[in-house]
Amino acid sequence: ILDEIFKGIFMSALEIQKDEEKNALLVSRKRKPEDTIVNVNGTKIGDGSQTFVFGPCAVESYEQVKAVAQSIKAKGLTMIRGGAYKPRTSPYDFQGLGLEGLKILRQVADEEGLQVVTEIVTPGHLEEALDYVDVVQIGARNMQNFELLKEAGMINKPVLLKRGMSATIDEFVKAAEYIIAKGNDQIILCERGIRTYETATRNTLDISAVPILKQETHLPVMVDVTHSTGRKDLLLPTAKAAIAVGADGVMAEVHPDPAVALSDAQQQMDIGEFDAFYEEIQRFMKNYATV
Amino acid sequence: ILDEIFKGIFMSALEIQKDEEKNALLVSRKRKPEDTIVNVNGTKIGDGSQTFVFGPCAVESYEQVKAVAQSIKAKGLTMIRGGAYKPRTSPYDFQGLGLEGLKILRQVADEEGLQVVTEIVTPGHLEEALDYVDVVQIGARNMQNFELLKEAGMINKPVLLKRGMSATIDEFVKAAEYIIAKGNDQIILCERGIRTYETATRNTLDISAVPILKQETHLPVMVDVTHSTGRKDLLLPTAKAAIAVGADGVMAEVHPDPAVALSDAQQQMDIGEFDAFYEEIQRFMKNYATV
Amino acid sequence: ILDEIFKGIFMSALEIQKDEEKNALLVSRKRKPEDTIVNVNGTKIGDGSQTFVFGPCAVESYEQVKAVAQSIKAKGLTMIRGGAYKPRTSPYDFQGLGLEGLKILRQVADEEGLQVVTEIVTPGHLEEALDYVDVVQIGARNMQNFELLKEAGMINKPVLLKRGMSATIDEFVKAAEYIIAKGNDQIILCERGIRTYETATRNTLDISAVPILKQETHLPVMVDVTHSTGRKDLLLPTAKAAIAVGADGVMAEVHPDPAVALSDAQQQMDIGEFDAFYEEIQRFMKNYATV
Amino acid sequence: ILDEIFKGIFMSALEIQKDEEKNALLVSRKRKPEDTIVNVNGTKIGDGSQTFVFGPCAVESYEQVKAVAQSIKAKGLTMIRGGAYKPRTSPYDFQGLGLEGLKILRQVADEEGLQVVTEIVTPGHLEEALDYVDVVQIGARNMQNFELLKEAGMINKPVLLKRGMSATIDEFVKAAEYIIAKGNDQIILCERGIRTYETATRNTLDISAVPILKQETHLPVMVDVTHSTGRKDLLLPTAKAAIAVGADGVMAEVHPDPAVALSDAQQQMDIGEFDAFYEEIQRFMKNYATV
Repeated sequence: ILDEIFKGIFMSALEIQKDEEKNALLVSRKRKPEDTIVNVNGTKIGDGSQTFVFGPCAVESYEQVKAVAQSIKAKGLTMIRGGAYKPRTSPYDFQGLGLEGLKILRQVADEEGLQVVTEIVTPGHLEEALDYVDVVQIGARNMQNFELLKEAGMINKPVLLKRGMSATIDEFVKAAEYIIAKGNDQIILCERGIRTYETATRNTLDISAVPILKQETHLPVMVDVTHSTGRKDLLLPTAKAAIAVGADGVMAEVHPDPAVALSDAQQQMDIGEFDAFYEEIQRFMKNYATV
Repeated sequence: ILDEIFKGIFMSALEIQKDEEKNALLVSRKRKPEDTIVNVNGTKIGDGSQTFVFGPCAVESYEQVKAVAQSIKAKGLTMIRGGAYKPRTSPYDFQGLGLEGLKILRQVADEEGLQVVTEIVTPGHLEEALDYVDVVQIGARNMQNFELLKEAGMINKPVLLKRGMSATIDEFVKAAEYIIAKGNDQIILCERGIRTYETATRNTLDISAVPILKQETHLPVMVDVTHSTGRKDLLLPTAKAAIAVGADGVMAEVHPDPAVALSDAQQQMDIGEFDAFYEEIQRFMKNYATV
Repeated sequence: ILDEIFKGIFMSALEIQKDEEKNALLVSRKRKPEDTIVNVNGTKIGDGSQTFVFGPCAVESYEQVKAVAQSIKAKGLTMIRGGAYKPRTSPYDFQGLGLEGLKILRQVADEEGLQVVTEIVTPGHLEEALDYVDVVQIGARNMQNFELLKEAGMINKPVLLKRGMSATIDEFVKAAEYIIAKGNDQIILCERGIRTYETATRNTLDISAVPILKQETHLPVMVDVTHSTGRKDLLLPTAKAAIAVGADGVMAEVHPDPAVALSDAQQQMDIGEFDAFYEEIQRFMKNYATV
Repeated sequence: ILDEIFKGIFMSALEIQKDEEKNALLVSRKRKPEDTIVNVNGTKIGDGSQTFVFGPCAVESYEQVKAVAQSIKAKGLTMIRGGAYKPRTSPYDFQGLGLEGLKILRQVADEEGLQVVTEIVTPGHLEEALDYVDVVQIGARNMQNFELLKEAGMINKPVLLKRGMSATIDEFVKAAEYIIAKGNDQIILCERGIRTYETATRNTLDISAVPILKQETHLPVMVDVTHSTGRKDLLLPTAKAAIAVGADGVMAEVHPDPAVALSDAQQQMDIGEFDAFYEEIQRFMKNYATV
C-alpha cells in the first residue's frame, strides 16, 4: 500500500509536469492570454469579426479563378483559396498545375485585390511559392509533416494549419507549436472534420474542437465546411454552427462550373449557390453580431 | 463485359429499390413532407420554436428534483428530465431509484406544472412507468433494443429516441421507424454525440446529423449537449451551434449540488451556472430569432 | 504547488481505488486466477482445446437447419448456432421465426446430438426460450441491455456474451460482471469486430482484445469471424489468427444455400465451403496443437 | 423510372471503370499475379518464409545499437531497425540523432553483417541517407506525403511503407502505387494498427488487413506488433496471429534498457524479453511451418 502511495505521488508529479508542459507551450493561452490576430496584408483574422475564405478546390485555368475571384470581390471579401499542388489519393488523379497554378492565383488576386491562400505540400516547394502566396496552407495529410512545419515556422507569412484527418486536438495544438517554436506566430488553425465510422458525411465536423482550441490556444480558429461535410446541402447550416460556436472564420469551395471540376466536383458550390449561401450567412451574421 | 453490364443493371435496380425503400419509410420526409409537431400536453416540439429540456442526470431525492424544477419553472420552461432507471456501465454503480424515482418526478412536476421526460430501459418497466411519465426516453444504449422500440410504438405518449453511441444516421432513422411502424408518430430524435478516437470530449457531437435528420425525416430533432461533450465549459457554445444548425431543442443536465451527484458529477451545471447558461442562450436566441 | 500535490495524492488514491474495484470484479482473474471452464452438457469451453460453433445466421426451416446440423455432426462437432429472434436494422427486414425457430433448432439438435446456441433479445423471451436452448447468446446490440444481462445472470444455462459494436474492453468486462453478479458464472465472451472508419470489412476484428480478455478475466473467449469481417474470403485466415492469438473457440455462419438466405446472404459459407474451411483449420490446429 | 435506369447504367459504368482502374494499378495482383519478392542484399521478403525486423525505437548511441545488433545476429537474423529522424508529436520531444544516428546504424550493421531499416521523413533527407540505409521506411504519418513517396519511387533501394494511422486499405494501396509508378517495385507494406475509440491498446491492430493486402496486391506484407498494440504483454500473441493470418514478417522494438529509452520506453522489449519472445515464436513457427 505504501508502494501504491509512492507510485501515486510519482504519477501525480508526472501529471503536474504534463500540465505545466502544456501551459508552457508558446501557442498556449496560459502562456499568452491575449488573442493572436493574424494580419494578412491588412485583413485581420481573429479580431472578433469573421473572415471568409472561398475559392476553387484546384486551380484549373485563369478564367476559372477569375470568375470566382470576381464573385468574391463583389461581396466585399478579400481572400481567395485555390490548390496548385494537390495531394491526391491516387497518383493518376489530377495533381494540380503546380507553379503555373500559383502564377494564375497571383495574377488574378492582384487584379482583384485579393489575398491568396494555397497549400504547400513539401519543404522543397516553399521557397518558389513564397513569391506568389499570402497565406501558406498546410493540409490535413501534412499536419504531422514535421519538416514542413519547421520550414513554415521560418517564413514571414501567415500559415493556415489544418487538423489532420484523425489527429487529436492535443496533436493539432502541438503541430502548431512546431511552427511557432521556429519563430512564426501568425498561425490560423482550421478544423476540417475528422474520420469516423459515419458515412453520411465525408468527415465528421468536430464542432466542439472550436471552443476547445479557442480556450487552449490564443490562435484564431476557422472551420472548413466543405471538407468537413463533403455535401453542398450542409454548407449553410454548418457554417452557421461554426459562427455560433465561436469560430473566427469559415472556408468553403466555389467553382464556376462544378460539374467539370477536376477534383471534388460534388462538393463545390457554383457562383449562384455561392451568392445564395453568402447572402444567407450575412443575414444570420447581422442578427448574431448584435449579440 | 456484357456480364458486367448485366451486373451493373442489377446493381442499379437494387440501388433504386433501396432508395424507394428509404423514401417509403413512414418517418421519411419524402413520404410526409410536413414537419411532425410533437405535442407534450401543450408543449409543442418541432413547431419552429426551440424547446429546452433540463434536469438532473439521476433522480436522487424530492429536494434535489424540487430545486431544479423550481429553477426550470422560474425560466418559464415546461419540461424536466431525470433518470429513475439508470443504465450504468458497472453493476456496482448507482442504478437509480426506479419506481420511487418516477413518483418523485411526477409529484414535483405536478407541483410545478412541468412535463416529465425519463428513460425506460426495458419493456417490462414501460407499463408501470406510463402513470408517471409524459415523454418516454429511449437511451443511446437501447437505440437498437428493438423489442423496447416496438413497445414504445404501442403507447400513446411521445418518445424521445437518442442516437446510439456508434449508430449511423441511417440506423438511427430505422430505429425510429420501428416505433412509428407500430402506430406512434410522436417521436423526437436526439443527437447526443458519437464515439470517436478523440478524448478531449466524452463523445464527439455530430452537428451535421441535425440538418441531415431534418432533411430525411419529418421528426423534430434535439441535441443533448451534456452527453455530447461531457464538459460544462462546452455546453454554451455547443447549444448555440445546435440552435444555429437548425435543432428544435436542446437538452442539458442540471443538479443543485453536482459535487455530491450520484452520477455524472463532472458534467452537470449547478443552479447558478444554469441561470447564466440560460440567460446567455436567451440573448443569443433573441437576435437569432429575427433572422 | 502544495495544492497540486494534494490533488495528486487524491487522484492517485482514486486510481488505486479504481484498480482495486477492477480487481474486485467477480469476472477478474485477480479475483479468481484459474480459468473458468464452461460446460455445455459435456462440451467444455475454455479447457485449453478449441470449440467451434457453426450454423446459419437465421433459422429459416427444418430442412435448412438439418442440412447444416448433419454437416456439423459429420465433423465430430457438438454445437450449432442459429437465430430465431433476429435484431435487424430495419423493421421491414426478416425478423426471425421466433418460438417456431427455437422449436426447429431443438428438434434438429436432439436428432443430431448437438447443443443449441441462440440469441435472446429481451427479458420477456427468456423463459419460453429456456426449454429449447443450451446456451443463451446476448448479441452485440444488447451488450448493455442491463435488464437482459441481469436476467441472464439468474438462469442456470451458459451465456455467450458478444462485445458491443463500439464497446471498450472495459465496458465488455463490466457487462459480463452484470451476469456473474447475479450468480451465473458460466459466461463465454465473444469478440465480433468493432466499428471503425475502415469499410473494406464489415467491422474491424480487434484481435488484441482476445489476449487482453484472457489476462483480465478468467472466462473463455471466442471469436466470431463472420461478423468481424463480413467476408467469406477472410474467414479462414482470421480463424487461424484467432486460434494463434489464444482464443478458446471460433464461431462462423454456414447456410446450405447462402444465395437464398433471408439475412446475411453474402457472408455465410455453403456446405462445401464449410467442409474446406474446417479441413484447413484442422490441418492448422494439428500442427499448432503440438506447440 | 427510365431516368432511373439510365442513371443506373451510368452508375454501373462508373463502377466498372473504378474496378478496372483498381485492377490496372501496378501494385495490383490482377495486374501481376506472382508475389513480388523484395531482396535486401540477399534477405528475401515475401518468398514464403517469415522475416523479422527488430531494433530500438530510436538510435541513441553506438553501445545501445550494438547491444541489440549482437542479439539479433545471435538469433541468425539479418535485419535491424532504428530511428534516426524521429517524427514526434511535440517539438520538445527527442527528435533523433539525424545523420549521426544513420552513421551509427551503418557502422554497427557492417560490423554485424545486418541490413538497416530506418525511417526517412522528408525528401531533403533522402539523398544523404542512401549511403547508410538498406531499406527506406516511410512512416505512418507520412503515408500520404506524396512528394516523399514519389522520391522513394526513384531510388534503387527497397521501401517499407507503413499504413497511415487512419488510412483505409484502399488509400494504403494507392500510396504504394505512388512509389511503384515512379519505377521502384521493391515495396514492403506494413500494417501497424489503426486509430479507433478503444484505449486499451495504443492502436487497434487490423489483422484482416493482412490477407486483404495479400489478395489485392502482389507485395509482401509485414505487421509491426509494437506500434499496433503499444503493450509488451501483447507482442507475442499478436506476432503469432500475424504469422497465422499470412503476414510475410513481423517488426518489433527492442532496447537494451527500455527504462532509460528516449522514446517509447513502455513498449520496447529488453534483451531478455527479446530472447524469450523469439524463442517462443520459433517454437510456434516450427510447428506452423509444417502446415
